[in-house]
Amino acid sequence: MQKFTMKDLASRLGLSIATISRALNNSHETNSETRERVIAMAVEMGYTPDVYASNLRSRKSKTIGVIIPEITNSFFSQVIDGIETVARKQGYHVLIHLTHEDHEREVNLVRLLTDGRVDGVLMSVSGSAKKNDHINALKSRNIPVVLFDRIADDVKTLKIITNDYHCGFMAGKLLAKSGCKRISSLSFLTDSSVDYKRRAGVEDAAREYGLSYTTIGCLSDPETNLESIKCHLQSNFKPDGMFSPVEKLALVVYEACKTLDIKIPLDLKLVSFANMTAASLLQPPLTSIIQPAFEIGKQSCEALFKAIKNNFLHGDEEIILPSILVERESSMTCNAFSHK
Amino acid sequence: MQKFTMKDLASRLGLSIATISRALNNSHETNSETRERVIAMAVEMGYTPDVYASNLRSRKSKTIGVIIPEITNSFFSQVIDGIETVARKQGYHVLIHLTHEDHEREVNLVRLLTDGRVDGVLMSVSGSAKKNDHINALKSRNIPVVLFDRIADDVKTLKIITNDYHCGFMAGKLLAKSGCKRISSLSFLTDSSVDYKRRAGVEDAAREYGLSYTTIGCLSDPETNLESIKCHLQSNFKPDGMFSPVEKLALVVYEACKTLDIKIPLDLKLVSFANMTAASLLQPPLTSIIQPAFEIGKQSCEALFKAIKNNFLHGDEEIILPSILVERESSMTCNAFSHK
Repeated sequence: MQKFTMKDLASRLGLSIATISRALNNSHETNSETRERVIAMAVEMGYTPDVYASNLRSRKSKTIGVIIPEITNSFFSQVIDGIETVARKQGYHVLIHLTHEDHEREVNLVRLLTDGRVDGVLMSVSGSAKKNDHINALKSRNIPVVLFDRIADDVKTLKIITNDYHCGFMAGKLLAKSGCKRISSLSFLTDSSVDYKRRAGVEDAAREYGLSYTTIGCLSDPETNLESIKCHLQSNFKPDGMFSPVEKLALVVYEACKTLDIKIPLDLKLVSFANMTAASLLQPPLTSIIQPAFEIGKQSCEALFKAIKNNFLHGDEEIILPSILVERESSMTCNAFSHK
Repeated sequence: MQKFTMKDLASRLGLSIATISRALNNSHETNSETRERVIAMAVEMGYTPDVYASNLRSRKSKTIGVIIPEITNSFFSQVIDGIETVARKQGYHVLIHLTHEDHEREVNLVRLLTDGRVDGVLMSVSGSAKKNDHINALKSRNIPVVLFDRIADDVKTLKIITNDYHCGFMAGKLLAKSGCKRISSLSFLTDSSVDYKRRAGVEDAAREYGLSYTTIGCLSDPETNLESIKCHLQSNFKPDGMFSPVEKLALVVYEACKTLDIKIPLDLKLVSFANMTAASLLQPPLTSIIQPAFEIGKQSCEALFKAIKNNFLHGDEEIILPSILVERESSMTCNAFSHK
């Protein structure tokens, strides 16, 4: 089907393009009779305004970009739900890009967004990011940026996070109170801000409560992680408590324990950050630190729109939305539940 | 920071805008000395081409739209993963819109995408869609559309689905073979194509194997569903087998059984469509029909790019990517596993 332009409309009606444009934009400079003629012809010809021509005039793309490490993750999908709720109310479109924890991919994605395609960017940096000049480049082009969850120290902007260190400490304390003596933290080798702070909290709790402590390096491949965790569970360290900073690693721990016939929580107690609905239905139910994911998405997006509408860039600022710790069977002492 | 235009470059260098444009577009009509002067000045001034001006020329937005009912759902997040993998390779951006099962919202979203913002649309229609003129409107504006998972009969285009009816039948047959006599299918009151076909399969299997059969109407609110399911489990029908067409309803069944102290699979056997990793770790592990979600996203996106690149619209055609049934404890007969 042919795509008609204002020029086609103009020549069909014997009017100037300027008159057509004024009529379609409901300008008071056109008399109502002309306006009706133009609109009737536009409908008849199936004319639709061209968004790019219109964006060129307004210099607004009505689009925001969202850059996240992955999407098959309850936390990030709930964040997007929150972002989308706000964006829709503002009549905005949401572009989603995934970095898959690859810093180079992230740099390229961010560069793609400096071309005027988006009015602002919401971002959770990839685990492997060390230097973030690419994010600062957005700001220097007057594109507002809000970071959430995984933030970067060298980017001065608004950051919306949870109380990662505190939650890590609570997890360590809970494991100590449940009688653990040797605890391990799972950790991604590609360091992210949240991973680091959560582990620091667990480590400080271990020190305070006199527990032995170590970490297990994990990668993005679940098969390799399963092997590393199985190996660690059979090592001389023999952990009796474990902390996972993300839900997907907790599921690998369940898998490893199942294979090795290690009973949770009898032989190993487990606490994890987890936003999945299924956490309470696992065997045994998982003690979870639940982040306010929808709210993080919502507030990040609202703050971004403030910057877009009022044409300013955020200074360095942090908003902390606390998570909650829900105690379930996976971290309980053996007399606190009926085992067998 | 100031945004420079070609006009600024032109006046700084004392050249015409046409010359600047030719130089930046590497045209052979410009001599190399001029080209180098222009590029050097462009770099010095921090000039970046405007994507909207450039789109206006090429009439390609380099963006595809994805419209799905929800994102906090393992199936849809895995589909997006597949879509994004293909789009990235093509240098395309992905706009994501959620309908939350609301037909009116879907109609408005689709209208937003007819303005030239996207070069093509991938879509899973909302459960409540009866008439789909809005989707056909995309096609009549020469915007290719591929439907996946939840399709619509009145839209003639490529549809990528799984073998929904067959999987429903397999589920019903499995429940019969496990000794069930009275089975119930969960169902959304707002009918979707997949929901309908899956239930039809279960119902036909029930008829073939001589089982009593009924359906339980569900809505989008989990609290209401929990009450309906609890109510049904205590009704005179007293089901001993249950089928869920989506994973989130299966989790509500677990919840209901926990509250009512109904043992799965001893008192109730359960089979569900489910793509979540946690399915095998639930108490008991869930017998799951797993859709090739990543592959559905990948193939839908590849087919869409074929249409975009070669400037054609798909005719009415279906591609069926089969799901697999993974039998686990939730549907087993009591002597097939060691209970207690």
